[in-house]
Amino acid sequence: MTPQNSIPECIVSKDERWVKQITPKTDDFSRWYLEIIQKTELADYAPMKGMMVIRPYGYAIWENIQRLMDKRIKATGHVNAYFPLFIPESFLQKEAEHVQGFSPEVAWVTSGGKEELEERLAVRPTSEAIIGPMYSKWIKSWRDLPVLINQWANIVRWEKVTRPFLRTTEFLWQEGHTCHETFEEAQKETLLILDLYKEFVETELAIPVLAGRKTWREKFAGAQETYAIEALMSDGKALQMGTSHNLGQHFSKVFNIRFEDRGQNLQYAWQTSWGVSTRLVGALIMAHGDDSGLRLPPHIAPVQAVIIPISMGNWKETVLPAARTIEDLLKKVGLRVELDAREEFTPGWKFSEYEMRGVPLRIEIGPRDVKSNQAVLVRRDTMKKETAPLDALSAKVPVLLEDIQTSLYREAGEFLKQNTHKALSYGEFKEIFETKRGFVKSLWCGGEACEDKIKDETLATIRVIPLESEGQSIQGACVCCGREAKTLAYFARAY
Amino acid sequence: MTPQNSIPECIVSKDERWVKQITPKTDDFSRWYLEIIQKTELADYAPMKGMMVIRPYGYAIWENIQRLMDKRIKATGHVNAYFPLFIPESFLQKEAEHVQGFSPEVAWVTSGGKEELEERLAVRPTSEAIIGPMYSKWIKSWRDLPVLINQWANIVRWEKVTRPFLRTTEFLWQEGHTCHETFEEAQKETLLILDLYKEFVETELAIPVLAGRKTWREKFAGAQETYAIEALMSDGKALQMGTSHNLGQHFSKVFNIRFEDRGQNLQYAWQTSWGVSTRLVGALIMAHGDDSGLRLPPHIAPVQAVIIPISMGNWKETVLPAARTIEDLLKKVGLRVELDAREEFTPGWKFSEYEMRGVPLRIEIGPRDVKSNQAVLVRRDTMKKETAPLDALSAKVPVLLEDIQTSLYREAGEFLKQNTHKALSYGEFKEIFETKRGFVKSLWCGGEACEDKIKDETLATIRVIPLESEGQSIQGACVCCGREAKTLAYFARAY
Repeated sequence: MTPQNSIPECIVSKDERWVKQITPKTDDFSRWYLEIIQKTELADYAPMKGMMVIRPYGYAIWENIQRLMDKRIKATGHVNAYFPLFIPESFLQKEAEHVQGFSPEVAWVTSGGKEELEERLAVRPTSEAIIGPMYSKWIKSWRDLPVLINQWANIVRWEKVTRPFLRTTEFLWQEGHTCHETFEEAQKETLLILDLYKEFVETELAIPVLAGRKTWREKFAGAQETYAIEALMSDGKALQMGTSHNLGQHFSKVFNIRFEDRGQNLQYAWQTSWGVSTRLVGALIMAHGDDSGLRLPPHIAPVQAVIIPISMGNWKETVLPAARTIEDLLKKVGLRVELDAREEFTPGWKFSEYEMRGVPLRIEIGPRDVKSNQAVLVRRDTMKKETAPLDALSAKVPVLLEDIQTSLYREAGEFLKQNTHKALSYGEFKEIFETKRGFVKSLWCGGEACEDKIKDETLATIRVIPLESEGQSIQGACVCCGREAKTLAYFARAY
Repeated sequence: MTPQNSIPECIVSKDERWVKQITPKTDDFSRWYLEIIQKTELADYAPMKGMMVIRPYGYAIWENIQRLMDKRIKATGHVNAYFPLFIPESFLQKEAEHVQGFSPEVAWVTSGGKEELEERLAVRPTSEAIIGPMYSKWIKSWRDLPVLINQWANIVRWEKVTRPFLRTTEFLWQEGHTCHETFEEAQKETLLILDLYKEFVETELAIPVLAGRKTWREKFAGAQETYAIEALMSDGKALQMGTSHNLGQHFSKVFNIRFEDRGQNLQYAWQTSWGVSTRLVGALIMAHGDDSGLRLPPHIAPVQAVIIPISMGNWKETVLPAARTIEDLLKKVGLRVELDAREEFTPGWKFSEYEMRGVPLRIEIGPRDVKSNQAVLVRRDTMKKETAPLDALSAKVPVLLEDIQTSLYREAGEFLKQNTHKALSYGEFKEIFETKRGFVKSLWCGGEACEDKIKDETLATIRVIPLESEGQSIQGACVCCGREAKTLAYFARAY
């Protein structure tokens, strides 16, 4: 079928487009990002420094993320619970590395009602130190293991430099906290979740990621090993999208989480913790957005398809009923659909509005379409148009949405591939970060001196040591010092 | 079919029952309540005074409440969002009555990281004072109205006397915050939500409630009118289960939430707010529980039916496969079912355990049942047993669960009826509270002197002024002072 533009050009006035215009992302990526958030009403600045309000459109994305993630967390045998917001200072101080890592970022409660507190309470910057004492109470025997608990909660970290969704004083997340009989089981859980995160982000957010281990310098304060998934944003900077930590016995030793093992010996439990946060919403903007605004993957888009009736002539008698029929049809097949029949806005204004909001599919229907029993479908990802008979819509639209999901993933995958470079010499390495950004895959000696030097000179850090290179024997020289390399590593400038 | 006990008495040892024994509720209601919470693992005490941990079993109930409530909130046109945890002190102080009501209960953040804050931040005791400034920014015209936003969040109130679920320093809730063009619309919203809460609690929690207005003394600090639903717990004390406030223009005036109305005049918006909390879990315990433990209404029970194979002889070859078949059958019809095939516990221990945990239906299957192609069904509400053919289960169990839901509601309704008394004289009134508790329905002059006197002398407060008596002309004398009555009122001692 030949695409057919059912509305006259005059309906889209230049002024209307201009009102919603956004700084092009190639001009100023950071400004583009902030403008999208404000103009699409994903979030707004709260009156306190570094804090944001997640507005209904942004929160609906988070709800979809929550729903799809919670399902996976439960399907792998975890259950949800809720632990207190406050952590007594003495608890936070028990694990030396943990307190050092988090105390510069803690908001402290010092009084309740009229009374000064005897001990300051930290507003949780993460919950290991309040969950530990509870696990110590609940776990007595190997029969009580594994403990597989997750919580959805708010977190506070007093950050100096903030940016909506990416780094805010308060954010929302899920944090899993598990206990196991052996190191191996804890390690298995750590990697199971890393894999779950990778699959989730790739399937639902349509963002391909690199998965791997963090260096000692980049790991979670208190963990034995940290694993992470990292994605490339469209400005060439990396974003950490989720972490999974093998905590070893670091916390079980200080919080006395002991169990009688199968041989009747007392042992400290082996723990993991892992989380993803509202940062994922920021990733969606930066990985898929373009100069017209958001491009949301259909799986997590609050509105998957918007129906816009072309308001001409006696449209209320002809076009509107047809539009309502389409709405009903699509809702019946389980899609999240919106019909925008508001009269105070023109169809042209609405086109730009929903383009900006990243609604994956626009369905236009005008008087001529009604006569030919068809509608015009416009994909947000490619802006390609096609017409389709009305009675084919309930079969066609879900297929089209799935195709948009796949295309966004493929496009991001192509971008990742094109922006992942190999550097064999340090000269090459530095040149890439001066001219191109992206990921650089290089050999590394494992030394912190090189890690530091690279960071100082290029602003790049080791994002992950890829899982597939773990335990492999590596042939070659460190990209920085030229000594024998121990491992492969992905370097990037990061958020 | 004649009920048939498929397990020999000897399997239920006296010792096993004893381990799980709970203080009878008639002996010590308060101790019974706390023991149930601990023993069924609904919640546990956190190491900080007044704070609790909601354990997976308790949180699963809350998740069911959330799911069923969120559906209703969205079906009435509301959307979810998320506002900051912290409120600058100056914001909280803007509404005089509000600050007076809440400041004795506020936890204060005074430093972030290493820096002392210039202004203290309240950990939200409710969110009117942080939502107000945002609404002021977002609302400009009548076209922006109504704003119908809800949030699911944690709340902190520094309470002196705490009790798990009923009154804790931190709790979870939903809070709706809406803006409207007129007082009438705000009032309509307030009552819509009151009605939604009543229907929710009666349908899903199987708890009948009284709905009505609060007196000036009992209303929300800052509201123009507060409406509430109140239920009777099985110790005869009332529990407030949800509130809906018409805020008038109290907050819009101090936060400058103004809009251009249809006549192009600037007007202050009319607001409402409303909430229910994790307190509902406490209500479930106290309204339905008995001496053996919880009795959970099937609609919100984390496990609706538990299947217990009777482990005798070669049960793993015969009974277990049949039990798994039942599990699959019931999961297929959408029920939340658990099969407990653990070998370290006897069937008898499991019977007591799930009774205590309030699982609505127990399905037993033993070697003899397998032979006769049947299972034994035991209702938790009445403990009545019956047998049913295996191939009838997927039709029978959902019907039985619905019957349990209805029976629990009917039973609680009967209790409410029997414990709602009329008092015509003050002597009668006082005698009721000395001997019987429950609700007392009496006429009231509307004077605070009588309200205070009654509270001092009987510990009873006015729980609600019933909606149906609003605006009606009342004939009769105030139960306390004997002067002309203005209204009917329900009095009770309350949590």
